[in-house]
Amino acid sequence: MTILVNGEPGATVEAADRGLQFGDGVFETVRMQGGRPAMWRRHWFRLCRGLELLGIPPPSERACLEELSRVSIDVPSMAKLMVTRGPGPRGYAAPARPRPTRIVMGGEPVDIPDARAILRLGVCTTRTARSPAPGCKHLNRLENVLARREWFADWDEGLMLDAGGRVRCATQSNVFILEQGALLTPGLSVHGVPGTRRGWLLDNARTVGLTVREASLTLPRVRRADAVFLTSARLGLRRAALAEQDAAAEDRALGSELLDRIHELGEQMNALD
Amino acid sequence: MTILVNGEPGATVEAADRGLQFGDGVFETVRMQGGRPAMWRRHWFRLCRGLELLGIPPPSERACLEELSRVSIDVPSMAKLMVTRGPGPRGYAAPARPRPTRIVMGGEPVDIPDARAILRLGVCTTRTARSPAPGCKHLNRLENVLARREWFADWDEGLMLDAGGRVRCATQSNVFILEQGALLTPGLSVHGVPGTRRGWLLDNARTVGLTVREASLTLPRVRRADAVFLTSARLGLRRAALAEQDAAAEDRALGSELLDRIHELGEQMNALD
Repeated sequence: MTILVNGEPGATVEAADRGLQFGDGVFETVRMQGGRPAMWRRHWFRLCRGLELLGIPPPSERACLEELSRVSIDVPSMAKLMVTRGPGPRGYAAPARPRPTRIVMGGEPVDIPDARAILRLGVCTTRTARSPAPGCKHLNRLENVLARREWFADWDEGLMLDAGGRVRCATQSNVFILEQGALLTPGLSVHGVPGTRRGWLLDNARTVGLTVREASLTLPRVRRADAVFLTSARLGLRRAALAEQDAAAEDRALGSELLDRIHELGEQMNALD
Repeated sequence: MTILVNGEPGATVEAADRGLQFGDGVFETVRMQGGRPAMWRRHWFRLCRGLELLGIPPPSERACLEELSRVSIDVPSMAKLMVTRGPGPRGYAAPARPRPTRIVMGGEPVDIPDARAILRLGVCTTRTARSPAPGCKHLNRLENVLARREWFADWDEGLMLDAGGRVRCATQSNVFILEQGALLTPGLSVHGVPGTRRGWLLDNARTVGLTVREASLTLPRVRRADAVFLTSARLGLRRAALAEQDAAAEDRALGSELLDRIHELGEQMNALD
């Protein structure tokens, strides 16, 4: 795995880096295709907005793109871009003139099973708390780590609820349900991280005649849904089902036309630069 | 500042360390006196309990003490001990056999103003959320960083409230109020980090005839308190006041006997090994 730290090959950062000390930074996980990150505008916008919330100066966009290209491989792969506030003296007080650290990590080829296969979804007991910086994909990810530790061997993903019992996300993806022909997804103004593919769906699903909107999703409502979907940079748009959900029966009830339309929407999204 | 990484002098860690990637680790900030951390049993207990919650194998206690001693200086100073899950492959899934990273950082001499001076306390708008691992002093500290950024120039500390508006802590200390002769402190079963000095006070205040217990503290209740106190490894036990609180008037109303007893309790706590 190739790692660049501030553009230089190297696999270490200062121990005094505030990314390590406090999780004081942000990241993006991007799908590299042909040397470029797919949906870059959405990733870049979220990165910059997160840095602005934290008061960290943004890196050069050109440097990020150039370094992501350098760590990419010949086949589609997942790369990670992190920006921290950089090293600082002890204590929470941020340096007046931060020297941010930029870390770019190459990754393994994207290895997704059959796009029509249905992912097996569990329910985590670790709750997702209110984000200290809503909308920001920051480096405080312990709740995701703890939720990930709960996965049983046969899970592909795990749903996460907030303290009030509403479904907010999965450990590394956003959640949609299909209900009466509409795609519904939890609001993420306070919890979780609004994903790039989630944003694209909210903006574009209507072009294929689908209604998509935010809604309050209790776990029973998700269980009763006509179908469940996950989105992420890695997965794209994928069907998923809880253990007690019978996807074959859902299919028969829904008919193939609607599911085909959603599947095509996912294909369209994945084909984007 | 001397830094030891897994016992070796050095100021870098792997970029792939999960402490940096996710804040997947814990820390203790200890007051070094005569080459030893004060109140070590309480620090060590919290460190081990936090690691157990996260599923990270604990380091050798002897190695921690020996390394803290190596980074300490001739005068009382604050040192920091961090333990992360160590490097891992990409993704939230923790390695089955983690190689934890132990980081020990020496620090500046403890520089505390006059122990009788009253610290100026502000109120932060950044809220403290439910902890993903209650009781664990983990490395997800962005809310403290953001709250610390709110301090005005004349603040010595900033109170933090939970989403429901209850006072839970300050950015780097625990909070007590004096009300009708009793010391009250917020419950921290879900929010914040229960401090070593807070624990000592809860266990020992009665030995000098003081009642101390957990209570639900709204901001108005803190404002109406007879006096406010903060505790931390650095500060020990210190009086504090919000801008609108008139400490001189509090003193006259309380009389010196009670305040002297609390001050002596602080001195007693600071003198402990």
